[in-house]
Parts: sequence; C-alpha cells; structure tokens
Amino acid sequence: MAGRDDVKALVFDVFGTVVDWRTSCIRELTSFGNARGIKNVNWADFADEWRGLYQPSMEEVRTKRREFTILDTLHRESLVTLLRRYDISLLSEHEIEHLVTIWHRLTPWPDAVEGLYRLKRNFIIGPLSNGNIGLLTRMAKHGGLPWDVILGAEVAQHYKPEPEAYSRTAQALNLEPHECMLVAAHNDDLQAAANVGFRTGFVVRPTEHGPNSTKDQSATRAWDIVTDSFNGVADAMGCARY
Amino acid sequence: MAGRDDVKALVFDVFGTVVDWRTSCIRELTSFGNARGIKNVNWADFADEWRGLYQPSMEEVRTKRREFTILDTLHRESLVTLLRRYDISLLSEHEIEHLVTIWHRLTPWPDAVEGLYRLKRNFIIGPLSNGNIGLLTRMAKHGGLPWDVILGAEVAQHYKPEPEAYSRTAQALNLEPHECMLVAAHNDDLQAAANVGFRTGFVVRPTEHGPNSTKDQSATRAWDIVTDSFNGVADAMGCARY
Repeated sequence: MAGRDDVKALVFDVFGTVVDWRTSCIRELTSFGNARGIKNVNWADFADEWRGLYQPSMEEVRTKRREFTILDTLHRESLVTLLRRYDISLLSEHEIEHLVTIWHRLTPWPDAVEGLYRLKRNFIIGPLSNGNIGLLTRMAKHGGLPWDVILGAEVAQHYKPEPEAYSRTAQALNLEPHECMLVAAHNDDLQAAANVGFRTGFVVRPTEHGPNSTKDQSATRAWDIVTDSFNGVADAMGCARY
Repeated sequence: MAGRDDVKALVFDVFGTVVDWRTSCIRELTSFGNARGIKNVNWADFADEWRGLYQPSMEEVRTKRREFTILDTLHRESLVTLLRRYDISLLSEHEIEHLVTIWHRLTPWPDAVEGLYRLKRNFIIGPLSNGNIGLLTRMAKHGGLPWDVILGAEVAQHYKPEPEAYSRTAQALNLEPHECMLVAAHNDDLQAAANVGFRTGFVVRPTEHGPNSTKDQSATRAWDIVTDSFNGVADAMGCARY
C-alpha cells in the first residue's frame, strides 16, 4: 500500500465498524421489554429509530445551534423522544440509565478484538468516534477492546464528519494527518478523513443495518485498504499473525 | 477503607508516581552525551534542572499569561533554555526531538505494571497527568502500562493542581468526584484532588528525586490509602492477586 510506511496510528470508527450496535441494541431492548412486561413493541424498529435520531441530534451541535454536548446526553434525549412516540411511560431514572448505557455494552464484531491486538503491536490504536470518553471507555472494558488511547468527538470538541474531528485527533497524537489511518465501514467518514490527509481503510460490514442493509455495501473509492475484517487490515499493514 | 465501595475509577499521577523519571532521564541524557561527545556535563544536575523548569512553565498557563500549551512544547522550551545554560550548541532538530521525547520513554517503577493489571480487572484506570495525550500514549506503549483511557491536562485543558484538572476528569468518565481515586506520590496533588471530593491513595516513592530526596517522604494526612507500591493499592482495593 502506498504510504503505509508513514502510518503510526490507526484510529477507528466505532458504531458499525468495531461493534455491531444493532444486534446488541435489539438484544438488550428485547430483554428489557420482556422483563418489564412491555408488549407490542417491535424492538428492531425501536433500535433503528433510536439510531435514526443520531445524526439529527449531532447536527444541532455541528451547526452551532447548540454547544458541544456529549453523545450520552444526546442518546438520552433521543430515547425520551422515542419512549413518548411508543407510548412507554413510568420508567424509573434507573431504568432509563440502563437503556442509555446499552450503547456502553455493544458487542464487537467477531474479528475485531483479534485484529486490534495484532495492530496494537505495531501501531497506536484508538477509537475516533462520536462517542464520549465515558461511553467508549466502558465499551472497551465490556468488549475487551485493547485501545491505547480514547480519542474522538470529546477530545476534538467536534463531531465527525467535521474536519476538526480528524485533524485535532492527529494533533492530539503529535502526528501529521498522513501518519494516521481511519478505519471505517462508512464511505462518507473515510472521505472526510481523506479530505484532511488521513490514510483510509474500508472494512465492509454488510449487515450493520440488518438483513435489509443497502448503504456501504462496497467501497465507493479506491481507499488505501479495502477488506472485510480487522484481520484483513492487520494483514495489509504487515502485522504478524499470532 | 471508608467509601471504597463507591470508587469506580483510579486515576494516577504519572511523573514520579508511575514512572521513575529521574533515573530514566539521567540514563538517556548520559547515553546521548557519550554518543555525541559532550563532556563535562553533570547529567543528573541537567535532569534536575529540566524538571525544575516544569512547574514554572505550567504556571504561565495556570495564571492565563499564556493559552493552554501541551507539555511536550513546554519540555522543548525548557530544554532549549538549558542547552543554552550548559553551552551545548549545534544540535540538529532530530537530536532535540530525541531529547524532548525522553519523557515519552520513562521507565515504570518495578511494582507499577503488575499493580495496574490487578486494578484494571476491577476498575477503570488511567493517568491524570499534566502530560499530553501523545506523550502519555507513547509512554504507555513503551512501558507496558495497561491504561483504559488517557486523561489529564489536555482533556481538562487545565494543569494540576487547578481544581478543573480533577473535576473535569471525573466528568469525562461520567463519574462523581467521590467515585474517583487519585493515586499519587505527592501530598499536594492529593490535597487538591481531595478538595474537589476525590478519594486519595498515597504511594511513597522515597527516591523520586534521587538519593537526597526530602519531599513527600511520608503522608502528611490520613489519605484513604497510604502504601509504598501499586500492589499495596490493589490489596487495599480488594483486587485479587494473580
């Protein structure tokens, strides 16, 4: 790969790229609904709608209509909106907190942890996510993600795909953009990173949005790496197998 | 220990508490001086003077005479001052960078890594240091420090012992101050953390400043934990031995 020798850090999109948010979310919501006796809710729809409120909630921050607000807070607000939409009421603060922190307990894709361990031996690895530090730290402990450092929105004080989200992440690592590679399952994220000079690795996650996924089923550009697993990224970066 | 059950995260002072900066610094400076043929320099004095410029350089930021500036930059400026003082000239940019990054390659005290691994199983662990993210990340990889997250000055945008350095660290972890414990070899650091509600663990490092150390040879208050190693902290926090 051209320029691979310059790369010192691999930073990762998290939701969809490292973790299977949808399956994890549906599983936890279903389990909660059953325990709480909430009937007639399609929790897959609920999960998709919750995720659907993700971009609009960050857009308020990106457009400066709202000061920087961490994702846990945005997730909570979206949840409250949805609970009203689904006519689910009388949840305790403890129960709402339990639901909000579903996003702290997402399960990694099966190849993620092994690939990260291989990459960690040769590179600095960290999330470059719109998630906040508290969320990403707990997710890492929950899923065994061996990050060297937690980066992203909160460190940069900007949400992806704003250019500062990438450039300030490189800066926080004392690196030039071309010394950083973003690994993501989303072409638009990679494009934004490439625009500020990052190297790019596309990992296709064909079922991120469930069986009817249509977006990001293939690379829309010749990214530096195009593969279907973190082991594929580690292979391309010349990392030893265990 | 009173209140121990509330603690969710242990955050650590780094220079002096986790790593033996002085021995590491003298070793690298001596090796550099020998290789470069620089004679008649007492590198122990040089190391102590470099560290001596640490607090004054941060004080410029604390008093707002200067905008927030990362420690790597302050270290570089102090180094340039010292090189002039010692009449050492004609160093290349590459050599200066090599010297500045001595602080990225400090060696942990012998008990530090084992103690951190024990604590990591039960708690979130991270540095709460005045070091910047790039410095602390490389130091962790160099020394095998298994941090869950890198915190401190750069995340808080304040240098210890300013209260924001502690309170914003707790906030970044979604925790209340009383759910965080600062572990440090310095009584003044612990006092500042206690002032905002942190729990406190004192680990005496009697030789931090070399054979003639006089400061912080014992606890000046009844901190929540008083011990002489990270294994002592892990024992006090009820962590299993390997």
